[in-house]
Amino acid sequence: MGKPQLVMIDPPTRIPESDRPVADRLRVVDPDQPAISAADLGLTRGDGIFESFGVVDGDVQAMQPHLRRLQRSAAMLDLPELDLELIEQGVRKAAELYGPGPNLLVKLVITRGVEGSGVPTGFAYAFEGEDYATRQRDGVKIISLDRGYRSDVAKTSPWLLQGAKTLSYAVNMAALREARRRGAEDVLFVTSDGYVLEAPRSTLVCRFGDAFVTPTTEFGILPGTTQHAVWEILADLGYACEERPVRRDELDRADALWLVSSGQQITPIVELDGRAYDKNSELSETILKRLLARTS
Amino acid sequence: MGKPQLVMIDPPTRIPESDRPVADRLRVVDPDQPAISAADLGLTRGDGIFESFGVVDGDVQAMQPHLRRLQRSAAMLDLPELDLELIEQGVRKAAELYGPGPNLLVKLVITRGVEGSGVPTGFAYAFEGEDYATRQRDGVKIISLDRGYRSDVAKTSPWLLQGAKTLSYAVNMAALREARRRGAEDVLFVTSDGYVLEAPRSTLVCRFGDAFVTPTTEFGILPGTTQHAVWEILADLGYACEERPVRRDELDRADALWLVSSGQQITPIVELDGRAYDKNSELSETILKRLLARTS
Repeated sequence: MGKPQLVMIDPPTRIPESDRPVADRLRVVDPDQPAISAADLGLTRGDGIFESFGVVDGDVQAMQPHLRRLQRSAAMLDLPELDLELIEQGVRKAAELYGPGPNLLVKLVITRGVEGSGVPTGFAYAFEGEDYATRQRDGVKIISLDRGYRSDVAKTSPWLLQGAKTLSYAVNMAALREARRRGAEDVLFVTSDGYVLEAPRSTLVCRFGDAFVTPTTEFGILPGTTQHAVWEILADLGYACEERPVRRDELDRADALWLVSSGQQITPIVELDGRAYDKNSELSETILKRLLARTS
Repeated sequence: MGKPQLVMIDPPTRIPESDRPVADRLRVVDPDQPAISAADLGLTRGDGIFESFGVVDGDVQAMQPHLRRLQRSAAMLDLPELDLELIEQGVRKAAELYGPGPNLLVKLVITRGVEGSGVPTGFAYAFEGEDYATRQRDGVKIISLDRGYRSDVAKTSPWLLQGAKTLSYAVNMAALREARRRGAEDVLFVTSDGYVLEAPRSTLVCRFGDAFVTPTTEFGILPGTTQHAVWEILADLGYACEERPVRRDELDRADALWLVSSGQQITPIVELDGRAYDKNSELSETILKRLLARTS
């Protein structure tokens, strides 16, 4: 395991007419030392956003899709305009400092900053993430859990921040603990009116015959950066791909299901709420190989 | 304004058979220096809990109700057993170090700790909070906003953590920004089936004639420590107090409404969704005086 690396991005927002050199604004610090104020609103209010970048053989994957999603999250939280160029440099710098290593992730965090300061906090943290090899090969058993929201809240109630990747993930973590209590490894969230959403840390991909479907982001879920890459691979393989509302009961007729994310890339679901699904091993391996071969 | 004070509580959980002296486990640190790791789950996942203690003339108010609520939140998040005695000492120490000063608050934060460490992070932070004098005197205009959840989710879906005071407050902060956009100062959350809940940082108290009502905590809202104190004052003044389900449309018949919390104590609502309410100035002042005179 390599040593984690921490690069502070100070600040991660645009400073018009600043002549501070980039070198001053990307500060490499010791990740074993405290780096964040106790009064940072990211900590005290979960008031901030993040992205997790996969890094394979030194290449940061899906940089631009992550940055676009970050900008979208920032807008939903009314954060000041981000300095995306500097943020990109910070992410690359953390990955470079870490060097080669398996399961490398760079977590990029932007918070509203220390209360009263008006200056957001930003950092890129490179670390060895979970090893998903077994999960990728053997698949996961998951359960569906009520997310409590109707499918239309992203439209009717934007202050619920559905579709923003915020630091307020306590519900996501509690749902994963509930899954483990029930002998499962992951969760599929379902709306109160019966539509499937996403997993706490990944996107759902469903197969019906030769058609592949992902739940619509209109219901307030994250646009999956890895799901987007999977779409491109599937299209290249000649499959049809569609984003649309997916009812929970439709999944009983699905031929295969996957969870996809930057960390795990692609994992077949072998059981949902006690119902077995085929791993589609050959296709899963093909997609995984191509996902790992991405260079941007 | 006094200087903020920060006391790390290390760790805030029980260590059986530990002979580490208390002095070692309450560490006074400079609040202007970073105190929290970038990999702390309280920051990266909003995975933790908090309480805000009001301090008036050196007395920390409602210590035991706050600690009971903290323990309840910890249980809902499956955190290890808290060392409540040490936490109480930490809160008092932060308040003592701060010394006398207006609008003093102590924020107590417990997180799940640095990822992978298994050791929760804890601290007590004493600082000068918002000055609520104008608000207490003139009252606030507020709007109601959809919380997106049904009134029964606390019972059906405990992983949604409704009723736990978690660090994942991004929705609460977004709702307050939405209120300001609409020219209001605060928010009353409403369930998708038409019941009122609470405000993002305070509890609702309603008056119907000589009966006082607070929305039931069974719908997944926080048991208000200040609301409990208001109940005692009202009972002492000869009024009836009841906690029960309250429909949004009932509020059109209410004679007065208040928001109560540790920081603001009690504030009359003068307008809800454009409808005017009487401040009940004399009663509001009586309750405020008695709330400020609490010594525990």
